[in-house]
Amino acid sequence: MATADRSNLIPFSSRLKEGRALAEDVWSIYNVANLPADCINLGQGYMNFPPPVVEALGVVSANHYSHPKGRIRLREAIKNFYGPQFNRDLDVEKEILVTSGANEGEYAVLTAFLEQDDEVIMFEPFFDQYLPSITFNAGKPIYVPLHPPTSASGKFSSDEWKIDPEELENAITPRTKMIIVNTPHNPVGKVFTKAELEMIAGLAEKHNLLVMADEVYDCLVFDGKEHVRIANLPGMWDRTVTVGSAGKSFAATGWRVGWLIGPASIIKPTLAATTRIVFATNSPLQEAAAAGLEQAKERKFFQTQVAEYAERRQILTDCFDALGLPYTNPEGSYFILLDISKVKFPDDYPFPQSVLGRGRDFRACWFIALEIGVSSIPVSEFYCIEHANIGEVYARFAFCKDLDTLRNAAERFKKLKQYIV
Amino acid sequence: MATADRSNLIPFSSRLKEGRALAEDVWSIYNVANLPADCINLGQGYMNFPPPVVEALGVVSANHYSHPKGRIRLREAIKNFYGPQFNRDLDVEKEILVTSGANEGEYAVLTAFLEQDDEVIMFEPFFDQYLPSITFNAGKPIYVPLHPPTSASGKFSSDEWKIDPEELENAITPRTKMIIVNTPHNPVGKVFTKAELEMIAGLAEKHNLLVMADEVYDCLVFDGKEHVRIANLPGMWDRTVTVGSAGKSFAATGWRVGWLIGPASIIKPTLAATTRIVFATNSPLQEAAAAGLEQAKERKFFQTQVAEYAERRQILTDCFDALGLPYTNPEGSYFILLDISKVKFPDDYPFPQSVLGRGRDFRACWFIALEIGVSSIPVSEFYCIEHANIGEVYARFAFCKDLDTLRNAAERFKKLKQYIV
Repeated sequence: MATADRSNLIPFSSRLKEGRALAEDVWSIYNVANLPADCINLGQGYMNFPPPVVEALGVVSANHYSHPKGRIRLREAIKNFYGPQFNRDLDVEKEILVTSGANEGEYAVLTAFLEQDDEVIMFEPFFDQYLPSITFNAGKPIYVPLHPPTSASGKFSSDEWKIDPEELENAITPRTKMIIVNTPHNPVGKVFTKAELEMIAGLAEKHNLLVMADEVYDCLVFDGKEHVRIANLPGMWDRTVTVGSAGKSFAATGWRVGWLIGPASIIKPTLAATTRIVFATNSPLQEAAAAGLEQAKERKFFQTQVAEYAERRQILTDCFDALGLPYTNPEGSYFILLDISKVKFPDDYPFPQSVLGRGRDFRACWFIALEIGVSSIPVSEFYCIEHANIGEVYARFAFCKDLDTLRNAAERFKKLKQYIV
Repeated sequence: MATADRSNLIPFSSRLKEGRALAEDVWSIYNVANLPADCINLGQGYMNFPPPVVEALGVVSANHYSHPKGRIRLREAIKNFYGPQFNRDLDVEKEILVTSGANEGEYAVLTAFLEQDDEVIMFEPFFDQYLPSITFNAGKPIYVPLHPPTSASGKFSSDEWKIDPEELENAITPRTKMIIVNTPHNPVGKVFTKAELEMIAGLAEKHNLLVMADEVYDCLVFDGKEHVRIANLPGMWDRTVTVGSAGKSFAATGWRVGWLIGPASIIKPTLAATTRIVFATNSPLQEAAAAGLEQAKERKFFQTQVAEYAERRQILTDCFDALGLPYTNPEGSYFILLDISKVKFPDDYPFPQSVLGRGRDFRACWFIALEIGVSSIPVSEFYCIEHANIGEVYARFAFCKDLDTLRNAAERFKKLKQYIV
């Protein structure tokens, strides 16, 4: 026994073998630790400026367990802020649930509703957490692609990414339990139109499907575009759970406070799930999030924030226009997909093992990070392997950074010109 | 369609039907909202005094995503604080994982290791979250009781609750994957002896089992009793994951910061699980927990805290001695199990539906809450249905309350005398 290898006595669960759960994830590959120290990080979508409501923390006295439903102050704040947007007098006991980040909220919905081999439809590119969240809960992810325009030569709107309704209906089987609709969309920036949502809603009604509306970027919609909530379409309240996030709303991704809004029939089982997964969400930052929502309207917080993000977006789009590369101009969220198919790099460039054998975009992103000094995320990561070719045309740049950082990045991008063929 | 009942369109998962997940839980039944306003709450184990390290919050600037492994400052603090206790130079990258409370850490271990129908052994009475955490991850809970002494007439030590080694070995099958060892134990207060842990370790080695050592009360051990870590027994490091909690250590249950310590073979799959379940733990309170651990030794924080808790315990034990009721004197944690079998109450007392049809202890706890004005938790809740008769002899009183609250409770307990037969 003494000399036997004891480094792996107990095998881990086969559920970790699905959904890339143990592979080196894209966030780790394009991590600051792997890149030159002075590389500007426009990869991961986190802010490099402080949240505007951080002063709330100083006065927080709540350090003990909160109710698993969430602190009543925060649930009241959610009711008051969101109620008018849903045209409903939301019930703080039955229709609102605070979760440990939107991510854990979505995980809990899947825990609450999936049976073995139930199918969940998502649109590609998709937020990468959906996949293992489904497989860990014994479900099966089904992919329906958003199609980019076929002949874009310069700036084009995120609205030009389209679902094929026939492809969507063909993906529905007797085992389909849920459709995830992410609007505004990460990473495309698309804000789904009412017509598109009505098409999805019609199929959900026809096939009795649950809809998880991931609307964590609902406060970041540009150019006067209307953010339509699928829960508000006729008949959809009863089958829709809408997901929100304090981290996205208040530029405080480290708070891990999110919320779910929906009918009691969805919230009650999800409460049972989240109560066992995390028991409750941290108390001090629920107070901070409540303070933020309470003050948002009077302080015109979200109007100001959207204007600030539009200015940040402009810096990058001006620079991509100057380069003459096609890219998606996002109507929402804080990502720009840059078409990097014309960026030329040497095949024998010293790429690390982690990016070889993946899509071309993995190498392009690495090359741009090292030669231009700006990091991004390869978009094929947000597609299933079969559809990765759609994504490998793009690199995702986040503009949730301060103006100086973005101007500095734009300056560096001028060097990219020489690599464009 | 318009008049059809649309309140339950999509059935929730059958996994919620197991493990009492949707039943009204005991915490809700004996909640302050259901009890008279002036009832003293010694039921749920949360503190009514502020955490001693709360000042750390004022200086926190970290509001964005932390690494899923946890903030490096906290991992370093854990290494420095716990390394000597494990006689190991802990690797902050591979052997330490910060989780969103100990609860989520334990859930993630189960997600990482359980296959469908894998069996997990726990000792009764058990922390009630274990059961659904196992069933939600497709596992099967197996119960081995701790036996109280058969003829206790007054105070007896928590050490007198014993496992029958034969019962334990008989519970092991080819499907057994894990044993959960909770020491100091909630709710018994037992601190497992080295001999007891060696017996469990021998069976874990013999049958190649993983051990989850839930040691969240490791800082609350009284009377100079030695807290032995099962991970430190010969050969056990490689198969043991030890669970710790900032909430329990620093009297801050609402922070939702916990940690796991173990070999890379356990930590790596668990990191993959927790990354998908919650992505990361909130940043500000990781900083607060790090500050607490960094300062603990110099400030003799835990020595002072143990002395304070011993004083709190004394107030309740003096009062139970005066009543002449048998009870367990806990060597660790902050719960006392009071034998309430001699407390007499009228059968036709106006009990709510929620406590009828459960063990006698449910009614006794309700009667004591309403007539004496002190709430507690019925201990049969911590047993499987087959063994509930062992638990229904006891009510659990938490003494993690300030001295005035406990003295007030002790004063009220004098009224209980008239109901003792």
